[in-house]
Formats: sequence, structure tokens, C-alpha cells
Amino acid sequence: MPPEKIVTACLLIIGNEILSGRTQDANLAFIAKGLNEVGVRLREVRVIPDIAETIVATVNEMRAKFDYVFTTGGIGPTHDDITSECIARAFGVPWALNEEARRRLAAGYANPADLNEARLRMAHIPAGAVLIDNPVSRAPGFQIGNVFVMAGVPRIMQAMFDGIKHRLSGGAPVLSRTVTSGLPEGVLAEGLGRLQARYPDFDIGSYPYYRRGGFGTSLVVRGTDASRLATAVEELFALVTGLGGEPYEGDPPA
Amino acid sequence: MPPEKIVTACLLIIGNEILSGRTQDANLAFIAKGLNEVGVRLREVRVIPDIAETIVATVNEMRAKFDYVFTTGGIGPTHDDITSECIARAFGVPWALNEEARRRLAAGYANPADLNEARLRMAHIPAGAVLIDNPVSRAPGFQIGNVFVMAGVPRIMQAMFDGIKHRLSGGAPVLSRTVTSGLPEGVLAEGLGRLQARYPDFDIGSYPYYRRGGFGTSLVVRGTDASRLATAVEELFALVTGLGGEPYEGDPPA
Repeated sequence: MPPEKIVTACLLIIGNEILSGRTQDANLAFIAKGLNEVGVRLREVRVIPDIAETIVATVNEMRAKFDYVFTTGGIGPTHDDITSECIARAFGVPWALNEEARRRLAAGYANPADLNEARLRMAHIPAGAVLIDNPVSRAPGFQIGNVFVMAGVPRIMQAMFDGIKHRLSGGAPVLSRTVTSGLPEGVLAEGLGRLQARYPDFDIGSYPYYRRGGFGTSLVVRGTDASRLATAVEELFALVTGLGGEPYEGDPPA
Repeated sequence: MPPEKIVTACLLIIGNEILSGRTQDANLAFIAKGLNEVGVRLREVRVIPDIAETIVATVNEMRAKFDYVFTTGGIGPTHDDITSECIARAFGVPWALNEEARRRLAAGYANPADLNEARLRMAHIPAGAVLIDNPVSRAPGFQIGNVFVMAGVPRIMQAMFDGIKHRLSGGAPVLSRTVTSGLPEGVLAEGLGRLQARYPDFDIGSYPYYRRGGFGTSLVVRGTDASRLATAVEELFALVTGLGGEPYEGDPPA
């Protein structure tokens, strides 16, 4: 059996509000977990400002480098919402009124005058793009090439992402199991390194936590083969027990 | 008066646990706010995996592009903690035992044998680097050139960052004021765009929120001139009031 192709993705978080610390991003972890389910590996995330040249250059760099690119933020009606027109520039296509997008927006206003010029910008879409449904507030996202453009508001982004997940062709789902030990990393490190060496296709991570005045460690094994994963977890239990710890599956108490 | 030089920074978040969605990053917003205080602009954030070639290449790209680079994650004792040796490679200097770092680590162990080989890796530092204090768990971070290497555990990272903030030379602190209106973005957009055009040195952001079945908008003005900022906020109040809204300063209720 030839080795399975690894399908990769990156996420571009577009918005000054994340870089200023005003807004805590809540989209990265949601998208990462959704990609695990469909067997796509999130390999990079960039947070960039609302600057046209930066958006255009970054989208073009990323869409050549990864199988999928997801963007969040910057598709609303205000002056700082420039993602959509930047994507058109990146692809070298016109940014034009999309009749279907206009119809969807118009359906939300009892008074046609409420679909003003600013709101009509949200119906402008790069030519050739496929709309992404927005069941929350109607203004659609879109897909063009391997780039999926979504809203930044978590409620809306989540609805959009759930709508497009089935369009992605990934590999086997990435499974993950966590073993928590009350032992510090420095005690576990040597045995853990040896275990990682014997499971080169797994990603074994070690994450210290601090509770009640001391450090403990959570060990996370990720991979696609459920049965070998179970064996690795058994070995982790044995490692922790052998070092005098009391391992259990799952995260440490909050 | 010549225009003040804008001092820029980027943050590299190093770790598979962020990209897998297992861990929600808590460091970006903390560092962003701290940089605002000392007048340094955070211009980009990248989240990258624990892959040596990626870390080395990204550090070298970023340290040439920004005045300051901050990294979080990957300086512990386990096999996936490779940030420190990658920084040495990026700078082309040896990665060697640092006597002061070893002394600090050793002071924490009653039994000298507890300072095992894995833990001693945390006392290996790129040659020529200056240590960053870790008052929480002793293993230091370090600064080399314009790159500041810190732990990923938020408690430790925050203590490290607070210790180095005074070393940074920024410009005037970046001030921020928020005006919240119950109006949707589409109603505010036109007037807001005109206001932004009259304050080109300010960054005026518009952030929709969803509460009790409807959308409202928070408007955030950022800049360094407190008195012009006050004038801009007055204009924002007038804009919202003129459109039938009831503005107030601060964020919307949670």
C-alpha cells in the first residue's frame, strides 16, 4: 500500500482586532478540530492586519503552499472589510456584484432601501467563486480555487465551516488520546523520547500544567491508526506507572 | 517634527498542540496588550509546528522583517521541545550549556541527580544569548539579537514577558477607546468610512456582536494622540446618535 497523501491546510486570521489584543481569537481551535475529523492537517496559522498588500501576498503564498486555505474575518460592510476584494486581486479576477448573493441579502430587509451601498459590498464576490451559506446573517462567504473565505464572528464562521466541511477531501481522520500524569516533564522526558522514536508516524506531545502548587504533564498521542494508538496509550500508562505516577486517560481537572 | 518611527513586532507561536486544536492559545492577546503599552505594533502572528526546518526558516524570515520577534513554546525538556536549538541554528551559533542557566536549574533540586539529562537540555542556550528570568519554574528563556524566546505555559510566559518589557524601545503607547452602539454595521458603515478618512493616522475598527436576537457594533479607535482620540470619540457618539442609536463607551455586556 503506498503511503497515504497527507492533505494540508493553513488558516489566515485577518483583522487588526486580533493583533491589537482587543479580541481573543475563537476560530482557530474550532477549525483545527473540524479538520482533524476530515483528515486534513492544519500546518500553519497566520494572523495578519487589514492591509490590502499583505492580504493579497499572503493568500497567494499560502494557496500555492497548502492544499486548502481558510480565511476568517473582513467580509462585512465597513471600510476595514477588504478581504473579499483582496482575494479577487490575489486570483486576478473581477470583484463584481453576485446576483445570488444580492438576492440572499435582499431577502432579509423588509424595506428595500435598507440594502444600502455599504451592505451591497457584501454581495460583491470574486468572479467564479462558489458561495458559502450563511444561515445566521445571510451575507455569504465563498470558495475560489482552494481558498475558503469565511466570516470572523464565531457564530457565523462555525455555521459556514459546518456547511463546507463535506467539500474537503482529506485522509483518514486524525485521532487523539490524552494520558495525564502527575509527574513533571523532566521525569518523563527520557522514556517519552524513546517511545516517540518507536512510533514515528504518531505525534506525541507533552504539555505541562500547573495545579495546586506543582507541575504535572499531559501526554497526547495523535495518529490515524486506532489500534496502534491503543497500544501506544498502554505503553504510556506503563511508562508513567513505572516512574511512580498514577496515570489516567483525559485532561487534568480544570 | 519628523514622523515617529513605527516599531514593529511579530509573534511566533510554536507548537503542534495549538495547530491540533488541543490547546487554546492564551498568549497572543497578553503580548499584544503589553506591546501596546510600550508603543510596539504587533504586525503578524504565525503559529507553526514543532518541525526544525520550519522554525529555523520562519525565525530567519521574521527577524529580518520586524524590529522584534517573540516566540512562545518549545523550550521544555521533552523530545518535542526543539525551539532553543533551532534558534541557535537560525543564528548560526553553537547551542551550548550555559553555566548560569545550569546553576539556576540546579538550585531547584534538593537531590543533584534530579537534574537529569533531559532537564539539562533546558540549560543549553544559543551562544551569546542573554537569559530571560523565569520566576515560576526557573528554566530561563533568552534573548538573542532581536529575538525573545519564551515559554508556552501562560503563567511562565507572562512572568518572562513582564521581565523583558522594559528592554524594548517602542514609540508612544498605543491608546484605544471603544464606543458601543446597538446599531448594525450596515447602518454605520458609510459614516464610519468618512470618519476614518478624516483620521488617517488612527485605526478605526468596527466589530459586530450578537446579543438578544440582534446585531450591534462596537467601534474601536486606536492611536497615540489622546486629545485627538477624545475628539474622534465625540464624533463617533454624534454619528451613532444621528443614526438613531444610543452610544456608550466600553464593550457590550457579555
